[in-house]
Amino acid sequence: MPDFKVSFPSLGSTVDADTDTTLLEAAGKAGITINSICGGDGICGRCKMIVKEGKVRGDVSMLLTREEIRRGVVLACQTYPDSDIVVEIPEETQARERLAIDEEAQRFRAIRPGIKTREFLKQPLVTKVFLKLEKPTLDDNLADWQRIERMLEKSAGIRTMQAGLKIMRSLPQTLRRNDFAVTALLGRRSGICEIMDIEAGNTSDVNYMAAVDVGTSTIVAHLLNASDLSTVDAEACFNSQSIYGREITTRIISSEKKGYEHLQEALVGDINRLVSTLAQRNEVSLRNINAVICSGNTAMMHLLLGLPANNIRRNPFIAATLQPPPFRAAEVGIKINPRGLLFSVPGISAWVGGDLTAGILATGMQEFDGIAMLMDIGTNGEIILGNKDWLMACSASTGPALEGASVECGMMAEQGAIERIYVEDGRIRWKVVGDVAPAGFCGSGIIDLIAVMLDLKIINRSGRFIEGSSPALTFENGLGKFVVVEKENTLRGKAVFIEQDDVDNVMTAKAAIFAAAKTLLDRLQLKFSDVDKLFIAGGFGSYINLENAVTIGLLPEMPLSKVQFVGNTSIWGATLAAFSEEAYMLFRDIRKKTTYYDLLGSPDYVDQFTQATFLPHTNIELFPSALAEVDMAEEGRV
Amino acid sequence: MPDFKVSFPSLGSTVDADTDTTLLEAAGKAGITINSICGGDGICGRCKMIVKEGKVRGDVSMLLTREEIRRGVVLACQTYPDSDIVVEIPEETQARERLAIDEEAQRFRAIRPGIKTREFLKQPLVTKVFLKLEKPTLDDNLADWQRIERMLEKSAGIRTMQAGLKIMRSLPQTLRRNDFAVTALLGRRSGICEIMDIEAGNTSDVNYMAAVDVGTSTIVAHLLNASDLSTVDAEACFNSQSIYGREITTRIISSEKKGYEHLQEALVGDINRLVSTLAQRNEVSLRNINAVICSGNTAMMHLLLGLPANNIRRNPFIAATLQPPPFRAAEVGIKINPRGLLFSVPGISAWVGGDLTAGILATGMQEFDGIAMLMDIGTNGEIILGNKDWLMACSASTGPALEGASVECGMMAEQGAIERIYVEDGRIRWKVVGDVAPAGFCGSGIIDLIAVMLDLKIINRSGRFIEGSSPALTFENGLGKFVVVEKENTLRGKAVFIEQDDVDNVMTAKAAIFAAAKTLLDRLQLKFSDVDKLFIAGGFGSYINLENAVTIGLLPEMPLSKVQFVGNTSIWGATLAAFSEEAYMLFRDIRKKTTYYDLLGSPDYVDQFTQATFLPHTNIELFPSALAEVDMAEEGRV
Repeated sequence: MPDFKVSFPSLGSTVDADTDTTLLEAAGKAGITINSICGGDGICGRCKMIVKEGKVRGDVSMLLTREEIRRGVVLACQTYPDSDIVVEIPEETQARERLAIDEEAQRFRAIRPGIKTREFLKQPLVTKVFLKLEKPTLDDNLADWQRIERMLEKSAGIRTMQAGLKIMRSLPQTLRRNDFAVTALLGRRSGICEIMDIEAGNTSDVNYMAAVDVGTSTIVAHLLNASDLSTVDAEACFNSQSIYGREITTRIISSEKKGYEHLQEALVGDINRLVSTLAQRNEVSLRNINAVICSGNTAMMHLLLGLPANNIRRNPFIAATLQPPPFRAAEVGIKINPRGLLFSVPGISAWVGGDLTAGILATGMQEFDGIAMLMDIGTNGEIILGNKDWLMACSASTGPALEGASVECGMMAEQGAIERIYVEDGRIRWKVVGDVAPAGFCGSGIIDLIAVMLDLKIINRSGRFIEGSSPALTFENGLGKFVVVEKENTLRGKAVFIEQDDVDNVMTAKAAIFAAAKTLLDRLQLKFSDVDKLFIAGGFGSYINLENAVTIGLLPEMPLSKVQFVGNTSIWGATLAAFSEEAYMLFRDIRKKTTYYDLLGSPDYVDQFTQATFLPHTNIELFPSALAEVDMAEEGRV
Repeated sequence: MPDFKVSFPSLGSTVDADTDTTLLEAAGKAGITINSICGGDGICGRCKMIVKEGKVRGDVSMLLTREEIRRGVVLACQTYPDSDIVVEIPEETQARERLAIDEEAQRFRAIRPGIKTREFLKQPLVTKVFLKLEKPTLDDNLADWQRIERMLEKSAGIRTMQAGLKIMRSLPQTLRRNDFAVTALLGRRSGICEIMDIEAGNTSDVNYMAAVDVGTSTIVAHLLNASDLSTVDAEACFNSQSIYGREITTRIISSEKKGYEHLQEALVGDINRLVSTLAQRNEVSLRNINAVICSGNTAMMHLLLGLPANNIRRNPFIAATLQPPPFRAAEVGIKINPRGLLFSVPGISAWVGGDLTAGILATGMQEFDGIAMLMDIGTNGEIILGNKDWLMACSASTGPALEGASVECGMMAEQGAIERIYVEDGRIRWKVVGDVAPAGFCGSGIIDLIAVMLDLKIINRSGRFIEGSSPALTFENGLGKFVVVEKENTLRGKAVFIEQDDVDNVMTAKAAIFAAAKTLLDRLQLKFSDVDKLFIAGGFGSYINLENAVTIGLLPEMPLSKVQFVGNTSIWGATLAAFSEEAYMLFRDIRKKTTYYDLLGSPDYVDQFTQATFLPHTNIELFPSALAEVDMAEEGRV
């Protein structure tokens, strides 16, 4: 091999390199450490260099733009000198990437599931099988690939059906360099087994996956170890798509106007950031993350895959697909093993997504004997009702009030957020995230506040402020404003208050959810008392005060034993499926079994919604405790 | 949409174009017709233009090299203006491509099969199904993709399993622009059905495929109409890989030294040239050719797919794979529908390829009651022996003598080639291709010549020239040289002759084939007389004189009724499979059922070979007619 000179003028150094030395290796010889995190597999795209002079060899990377290619940018790990060359290393390549994960999103990272589900067969969607093959002879002259297939059939009962050309190209050398001892990476693609890769030697104990809950507001990623079926670590961040709109509909409109690419890039960027953070923190190479399973609402999954979402928001609300098959993760830009797969949890309808299919699987509703209800409370609220025989789903737009947005002093549950409000000795008290002075309310604080104001008779059951009920209450143009914390006592020197519009937004949100649940029950001629188990899901779910949620009529009044906060069932369902094809295949049955009930098509929903815009409800008989309280008040006993 | 100016300075013209106008369309507006043959699908790569000034939009095409991209080269049909631009049209883009198909290769183009085979189920590997879907409503709110799946299952009983992301991305618009009437393009990939594309409207009667026989010397392509299961047209050319060596082994060595790319490019270039010629001549768009099925020897298939062939030539002779799964044709550079599939006919061993599997299928040997033998005579000779219960294969290196190469005055069967030689009134006569003066011998002429020289006692049964047997025979260093046509009477003014080396090469070739057949029979304790049917295959096969082939001992002496020339069974087998998945699936059974017998591992082969280097054979009892002749001679009756 001829030796070439590779010069890095910015460093004043030149090294020798033969035609088999990558520019990344040459840079290493010159003492430059590049912030590559994929181990030189051309996955992470971080080792960009500019060839200023001379000729190089190597495939054109899809990670580069046309402009970059024209400027001479190459991925150093995929490029070889073909003459003496002069190389410039851009600043971005040398800079260490900020592992900026939103601190405040960490409350979504719980690793323990909120629920215990039944066991499924241990058959991860991507598995590894170590193969110690017999070496070929004149008598046993089977071709290399058929030798692999024979052994897989014999040792693991697997009849493989698919494989890519690249693997077959490298197989003969991989086998002969490793004494015919290799590890097959197998992907289960909807009943078909694909040999995704053949790795040198025995790597069967190094096999990772990622489960991702793709939420409208928050994205949560778990790193999964597929060799011992454990969740290794978790990470969360806010959905960067928020800059294009907080609500799904505004993002869909954005995709209609400007194409899906900017929304896809935002989302894929978030997922890559989460996954590479998890990988680095746990010293796992991206190339050993062999699959990602994503669970999210139908619109988010469309924007992730680059599918047109425009018909989701238009009557009759049609998704492009509710059950995307597994794709190559690289096809949407997710940076894991280049052959790694992207699995999607199938959705039920345009407005009840895979996060709910995952929720049904995680709670085991599809095998429940009695009647179970799942309420998933987020920017949208979804209700699932059913059991082993039938399942019905509906969805209501709640708006972001219960997440602390669309409320004047609302905020995420970050430092300074009032997360709990209660009355002690007749005075309003609060608990703040981070034990600092308060700056605003997060969702759970707002629910508490409404309940407390109702209790203290600062607002009436219609949610209107009662004049003269508190010295902290003022009116302007007939609309009340109740200051909870004076500006002198707050974190940012601005008073923390709630005003009529805020109360109205919360009323709308809670009414939408409750009305959705009630309408669904009515549709089936059932009552809340017929529900044997109520699962409350959502990152949100674990932080609210159940009693206050009932007081304001967000949740129905039920015996505590029947209510269970189950946390992020989207990611637990996805994880169950990642570890078991049996569970993954169940998704299809759940999807087909679940009937979507469109509330817009219901004659009762608007009426139910109107009735529910009362604290707790116009029909007070639905809330026996509140009824008792009202009765007592009428009888003059309180 | 803003309008941009697109200038073509070389033509002195400038046209307006909006952001949805491709540069190809803009060129059309400027009156320039570009020699694009794919209809603007980015398949053929012929519409290259150079953007000299301004910004453009569009994906980077894989058909462009890094150097081209740096120079601003784009595929005009895939590129849109993003500002005012100045465009240069390279000469190569305007030039009409020469549809240079080797004239002399046309003898391989026969469209009628040489054999009648049994009928298989009509189920082409790629089919089209027209779907007239119900439009979605609130009550029937199935997603677009699931709507397609439901209809396919209902109307065609097809449970689809796979589909690409791009199709799902375009599906919603395709459906709505075409009133939910679309055509599904379905690929049968080893038992799995893939939705390859969804086309607008009803295109179910436009569905083409190509069958290609990838020979070491000659490549033959047939254009198939998959909607009426007919062969439309045929074309042939010589394998451009020949410049890297006439024999398989030299090409493998070339791939070991320089990589497989140059060999793959040569072959893929040939296939593309044949397929686009067929497409243009029959007014079929490349985008409507939805599959290519290739049949060839194992090494050729490896070089086509870019698989390492190095272990094929080394003991114990191991292929990378004998049954490649279907790939996207674009993955190896074959220019048809970008989603089109490349099917490979599976091979039996490193030295008995898919052309023989196809041959077995085409002749129906695998269902034969008696004992059948298939001799495929080309640069290598392969023998298959067997019936419905068992099949055994072997391969012998014959060298190219029987194809007119490695013979001093040998040539392809082109104009000027002596293709028949016979004796009339005691004088040697000949028939020349193209009815011109002779220039040399092709394979059939050489076989005739050896037989005629034996008959005229110019050579003896050892293939040595007999001194004084003819005035046209001269000797130099003890080696004879027999001039058949004096230089005055030839096409190129050079004498047409045969010398001892040539005779030796033919003797070696014919001995190798005969010895292979004999060794295989011996292995199974059978005799030629046990063979109920002898199929002679190869483009070659239809041109030789059976009697002369027996006279020199190339073919065994058998009753004429048992012998059948079957022509190019490689392409007929491939065509049968293209039109029927049932037939395609049979290939696997045939491959598994056929035992490869390695002649190098046989204790008898060398001995058999030595015995066969005699005219017709040392063991004259194998050739009763010759024996009779010898007997008569000994008894003085002739």
